[in-house]
Order: sequence, then C-alpha cells, then structure tokens
Amino acid sequence: MSQLGEFELIERYFKRPAQRAVLGVGDDCALLQPRPGTQLAISSDMLVEGRHFLATVDPARLGHKALAVNLSDLAACGATPLAFTLALALPHVDEGWLGPFAHGLLALADAHGCELVGGDTTRGPLNICITVFGEVPVLAGRSQALLRSGARPGDALYVSGTLGDAALALEVLLGRLSAPAAVLDAARLRLEQPSPRVALGQALRGIASAAIDVSDGLLGDLGHILRQSGVGALVDADVASSLVATKSYYTRASGQFDTQPALADWRRWALAGGDDYELLFTAPPSAEAAVAAAALASQTPVTRIGQIEAEPGLRLVDGQGRPLANRYTSFDHFG
Amino acid sequence: MSQLGEFELIERYFKRPAQRAVLGVGDDCALLQPRPGTQLAISSDMLVEGRHFLATVDPARLGHKALAVNLSDLAACGATPLAFTLALALPHVDEGWLGPFAHGLLALADAHGCELVGGDTTRGPLNICITVFGEVPVLAGRSQALLRSGARPGDALYVSGTLGDAALALEVLLGRLSAPAAVLDAARLRLEQPSPRVALGQALRGIASAAIDVSDGLLGDLGHILRQSGVGALVDADVASSLVATKSYYTRASGQFDTQPALADWRRWALAGGDDYELLFTAPPSAEAAVAAAALASQTPVTRIGQIEAEPGLRLVDGQGRPLANRYTSFDHFG
Repeated sequence: MSQLGEFELIERYFKRPAQRAVLGVGDDCALLQPRPGTQLAISSDMLVEGRHFLATVDPARLGHKALAVNLSDLAACGATPLAFTLALALPHVDEGWLGPFAHGLLALADAHGCELVGGDTTRGPLNICITVFGEVPVLAGRSQALLRSGARPGDALYVSGTLGDAALALEVLLGRLSAPAAVLDAARLRLEQPSPRVALGQALRGIASAAIDVSDGLLGDLGHILRQSGVGALVDADVASSLVATKSYYTRASGQFDTQPALADWRRWALAGGDDYELLFTAPPSAEAAVAAAALASQTPVTRIGQIEAEPGLRLVDGQGRPLANRYTSFDHFG
Repeated sequence: MSQLGEFELIERYFKRPAQRAVLGVGDDCALLQPRPGTQLAISSDMLVEGRHFLATVDPARLGHKALAVNLSDLAACGATPLAFTLALALPHVDEGWLGPFAHGLLALADAHGCELVGGDTTRGPLNICITVFGEVPVLAGRSQALLRSGARPGDALYVSGTLGDAALALEVLLGRLSAPAAVLDAARLRLEQPSPRVALGQALRGIASAAIDVSDGLLGDLGHILRQSGVGALVDADVASSLVATKSYYTRASGQFDTQPALADWRRWALAGGDDYELLFTAPPSAEAAVAAAALASQTPVTRIGQIEAEPGLRLVDGQGRPLANRYTSFDHFG
C-alpha cells in the first residue's frame, strides 16, 4: 500500500495526451465535439466484485472486461467508439493492481480508438463505473443506430460468435463443475476477457432491424427485443447450444473423460448463461446476403438461431422442431 | 426488502419519457444529438458512503447532492446542462430509500433541465456514479468553455456564495464540535444539499479567464488553477473566512454561547473545508463590471478574495496584508 494520492494516481496510470477530445483528463469537464451529421451514443456500466467478477480475477483482464462490456453496448447500437470516462473506487491504492488494470483497460481502448477523457477516483469498496461514448451517423435525417424495437414478423434471428463458454467457466471457478484445464483456460478467457463485437455492429447499420448484446443470457436479452418490438420468436435450442465453443473439445476427446456435461447443461449455458457479449440481432429475409457480407467484413461468425413471429412470446424447439419448455431465467443483478 | 428486480426498479423509479435525448432509458445506449456549433462537456463523479456522505443522510438530500456535484463541474466549465446517466449499486432494494432518493435527484434534474438518459443498477456496497453532459457554444471556431488554465498575472480572484459551512456541519455531525441547533440546520443544508452555480458559470462565459468548482477546499482547488495556468496568487484569508455564513449567527448572538469557534477554525473551514460547490474564478481587471453583471444576472453573490500574480505559489495574508503560513491541505479521497 502506497501513499499515492488521488491526483498522482490519475497522473501516473491514466493520464495521456488528449487526442480526439478537445480537452482530456484533468479539467472539470472533458470536451467532445461530435462531427456534423452524427449522434452521440452513450452507455454506462458499473462492475462490482462478486456480481460481475470474482476477487481472484487477473487485474489486466478486469480492466479489459470493464471497458469491453461498455463497448459491447455501443456495438449493439452500431456505434463507432469515441471516448470514455472511468470512475473507480478502490479499497486501497495497490500499484501492483493498478498497473495491470490500467494496462488491460487502455490496451482495449487503443484497439478501438476509444479515448479516456475523464473520470473520478475515490477510496471505497472496489467499484468500476465506465461511461462510453460512440458516434452514429444520421443519414437524411434518419438515425442509423440499431435499436431493440425494430424486429418484425418474418425477420431471421441471428447471434454472433459463440455462447455459454463464460457460464461454463464460472461454474468451474465457483467449484460447481470440474473440467479439464484446457477447457477451463479457453472458457475462462471468454468470461474474463470478452471481445465486444464492435466491427460487426457497425457493419450491421442499415441491415439489422433490431439488436442487443447478450450480457444477461440469450433468452433474457431476446425478451427485451420481443417486448420492445411487440413480437414473438421461435428459437432452435440445439443450434444455439452447438455454439458453445468448449463443447467441441469434449466431442473431439470423446471417451477420455469419466464425466462430461449433459445436453441440458449445454443448452442452459447457451440459452441463459450470460456474460457472452455477443450480438443478438434480427434482419428481414431479403437481407440474408447482406448479413453474411457484414459477418465476413467484420470477421465475425454469425449463426441463424431462429425467427421472429407475430405471435407474442418465446417458443423454444429442439433440432427436430419439437417444442421444449422454456425454464430459463436471465441473470438479474438484484437476483 | 422487496423482490423488485433490476428492470422493475428502473421502470418504477427512474424511467420517464425521453425529452431532449433522441432515445432514453431502456435501450443499449442513449442517443444525444448536440446542436450544431456546440461542444459537449462531460464529467463523472462517484459518491461512496463514508467518503462523500454519512450513512445517516436523508436519501432525498443524497439524490440531490449526487447530481449537484456533477452539475457543479458543468458550472465550472460554463456549460448548460443537457442530460446525465446514473449507475447505482445498492446493498439491497429498499423502496423506502429509493423513492426519496429518486425524488431528490429528479427534482434537481428538472430544475436544471437535465434529463436522465440511461445508466445501470446492480447489487453491491452503496455507490452512486453519475456522468453528466452539458453544452458549450463554439463561437468563430473558439470554444467558450471555462478552463483551469487561463489565469493571468493581474487577474482578480473571485469566489461565489459562501464558504466553510459544509465543513462546520461535518465536524458537528462527526461529534468533533458542538453547535446550536439553528447553526447546524443551516450548515447541514450546505453540506447535504449544495446549490451548483450553473447560472453563474454560464454567465461567466467570455468573462472569466479560468474557473474551477470548490469541492476539495478553496486553496487546494485554487492550486489546480495556479498549476495549470503557470501562475501564483495572493489570497486574503480574512475576506475568505468572512464568507462562512454561520459565522454571522455567532456574531449576532454574541455572548449567548460559552464556547464558539476560534478565528483559526473559521479560516480553516473557509480555506480548506471542502464540499462548498462554489465557483472559484479569475478575470482580468477590465472585466470587473462584467463580473458584477454576471453575478447580478445569475442572482449569485460574488466576492473578490485575492489576485493572480506572476510569481508561482500561493501567498496567504490577513486583512491587514500580513503574511500567514499556509498550513492547509485539501481533501484527498485517498487520504
């Protein structure tokens, strides 16, 4: 524990020359000048130990994740990242923690051209609050932001990347499941260092009819699209659970393990695991080729897992189209 | 304690129809479209129990204060409030707390036309993180934002309103001082429900050469202006300590109390008390009448307490111009 004060802490770990911002860290306010013909997309996320991360997490990965979950919100709006503020409560000033935390955070920020423009530090129970700013074009008076409310009956339902690996990792880390080290290492990266789908979100502007990022579980987050669009959906649980990346490890190494997760586990992790930070989105059938092109351009796999229907509610089916009960609940931060 | 979940909590206490924002609470991002010819001023503050407020504080006053300290940063930039995000960690969902908290917060927001556009809620040790957005005009390519870096030798040094009453209240609440109930009530309002000087800040655009809000103590915050402007200052400690509002109570009621604070106490509260949320600013001598007009237009008293000098450092004098030692340290949130 050092004698580092509030201002020295900011200077040493977080202050860098202002780039895009007119004025960066160190005045009462940061000043940002959005380009003409653009809107500002704004999102705020607060991360608390025990709710959003375990006390044992590598601080560099935590720095990465704190920004990643915010960039994921920008991705779901199709916004281009611009800048962010960081408010940080720390129980004590531990430079061995702050160094890697700042490094993980700023490395991801640099990768997305997202500049730290201000914030606050205080002593208190560990809490990381980031507010992120992105830019969305307005074309002919029409915002190009992707919203949750635009899904229409007949639209296809897609999800990016992989699902459920973060949930598998969390169960192992909490001691509720055992898994081979190679499985845990791979899955743990998904839990602790998720990749926000920023490039895909931007590529989907003008193509997707609705979008959200998967943070509290696929079906729970789909529920927001359905409610805000006034529609229902059919989801293929087997296609979704085929997207758990670590599942292929067990399949390849078949016979080497005494126990391996059951079908019900894979389904639960894929459909309700949370912490995936993939994009869940809808697009009309006419946009199928455009969706494929957006996936290719952003180098992000995209899988069709269902479709939007006029009848409200969520209908879950297996690979043969047989109805499945939906017993899945999404993660509630007050649950 | 109720079973209210995260989304119900937001719906019930914080969601209102979007006004100025294109899209408000409830999508992945809020969308804001700054007007042409303006810059966005952004500030973030995190409030933690025991550091920024006492556990016993009235939740309505805490809601007010959480936004007030952010609006005070906008005031120091001369920005017009537009919108804010709220991230809130709560140890449990207590509707008897949330109701007045939201009421105090939104009443101040409404008074300043500052719209809640998004945020986050989670379970965790009580933590309130607000990020606020304001608008600053850009005239002929020149930002009208007030900065900390513009003070020049010869400029007069001004402070708005009153100083030190919040510090006096805190000492009483912490049991380090006793004071008549009437004194505590008045001083406590300053501690728990400060008035951000938003109108004065806007009125000072184009007039003040530098500005900051007084949150960590007058001399400490003045230090930021001096460092960032590369100048020094002379401050009259007796003029500053005459600005403690509760001091006049003791003076009027002279003889009624066995003990009353000593001169050194009044000076300490005024010069280093913190939590004042007044504006400390500089202006060239030629702007004296304009400063008075801005004070009048914003109905905010302004007092000249010193002047900027070329020689670096801070020189403290008493009312007769005799040098005083500067033993005052500012509040450090890691101290």
